[in-house]
Amino acid sequence: MKQKIIVVGATGTIGRSVVAAFKKEDDVIETASKSGTLQVDITSVESIKNLFEKTGSFDALISTTGTAYYGPFKETTDKDFRIGIDSKLMGQINLVLIGQHYINRGGSFTLTSGIIYEEPILNGSNFSTVNGAINSFVQAAAIDFKNEVRINAVSPSIVENSPEMFSLFPGYKPVTMQSVSNAYIRSVKGALTGHVFKVN
Amino acid sequence: MKQKIIVVGATGTIGRSVVAAFKKEDDVIETASKSGTLQVDITSVESIKNLFEKTGSFDALISTTGTAYYGPFKETTDKDFRIGIDSKLMGQINLVLIGQHYINRGGSFTLTSGIIYEEPILNGSNFSTVNGAINSFVQAAAIDFKNEVRINAVSPSIVENSPEMFSLFPGYKPVTMQSVSNAYIRSVKGALTGHVFKVN
Repeated sequence: MKQKIIVVGATGTIGRSVVAAFKKEDDVIETASKSGTLQVDITSVESIKNLFEKTGSFDALISTTGTAYYGPFKETTDKDFRIGIDSKLMGQINLVLIGQHYINRGGSFTLTSGIIYEEPILNGSNFSTVNGAINSFVQAAAIDFKNEVRINAVSPSIVENSPEMFSLFPGYKPVTMQSVSNAYIRSVKGALTGHVFKVN
Repeated sequence: MKQKIIVVGATGTIGRSVVAAFKKEDDVIETASKSGTLQVDITSVESIKNLFEKTGSFDALISTTGTAYYGPFKETTDKDFRIGIDSKLMGQINLVLIGQHYINRGGSFTLTSGIIYEEPILNGSNFSTVNGAINSFVQAAAIDFKNEVRINAVSPSIVENSPEMFSLFPGYKPVTMQSVSNAYIRSVKGALTGHVFKVN
């Protein structure tokens, strides 16, 4: 069945691949912070509300966006750590808290975490923390939703299209964009909820 | 070996039990938000810095503190969700980010998460999120520490001493205070790091 799908982070490495995967069959609304059909700043509640006022009701929201702090733990401050809290964590969670008032019956949310929630890398504690938070959030939110609304997370390892990251992930097997896209397809078109799709 | 141990949240249900468990052998500094030997507001970076300026260097920090929001998901807002982010999540993380500059070689941090990071209850998404975040944080921070400093989390189920909570956790087996205290003892006196001690 054709769905109206909002992709937040549509211009990122994973976002572009996800948009391509859904575009053939579905109506995809591409959003990003500075480009796309619609712009949204996920660190702003007002900007997120504004986005949904423009899109109106929808069937699926996929978030492949959000950043966090990367740097030496010893020098990390509260301010550094809030980068990931405000962006990749609360940004994605606010897409759900606000988006739940616009989503159609039987719709789905799919957020993005990442492998280092359980297999950390040096200097990556802010990303790890946020990823672990997202994974637990979807498990909890899933049991609170009514109207057959579902929510999952995709937790990818490093992707083949980001060779500039390989040195930070020694020995981690880069995963194909196809396998990452498939996880988002399984989340949106499948029936699971409260699930973390690991793509390792 | 006798350790200088700071317990943050010393007057709570778990905190009191932990203080009693360590008091026989160690020097325990009891801190809490409104009582204890020293007061600390974990939502304030300044208050945490002030705490460590008063305690000076230490061997172990145990945090059994921090709150989060509990309520219907459908009405949950960014502001509600920030309660857990600022208290149980960033409060505990800031105890580590700041405390790392005061901890002795071979010292340890022990934070507290909770079972609902993976076995959620209705209306508890803020707690679940924060607990999952703490568990991933300790795994990541553990590999960044130098000087044999360790960090773990204790993830208890509902405890026997909190019967007022039982109805929110139908079928969850209340765990004994002894088994919870033992997890903190294992974290502080044992050798594991980056570990989540589940007390289910």
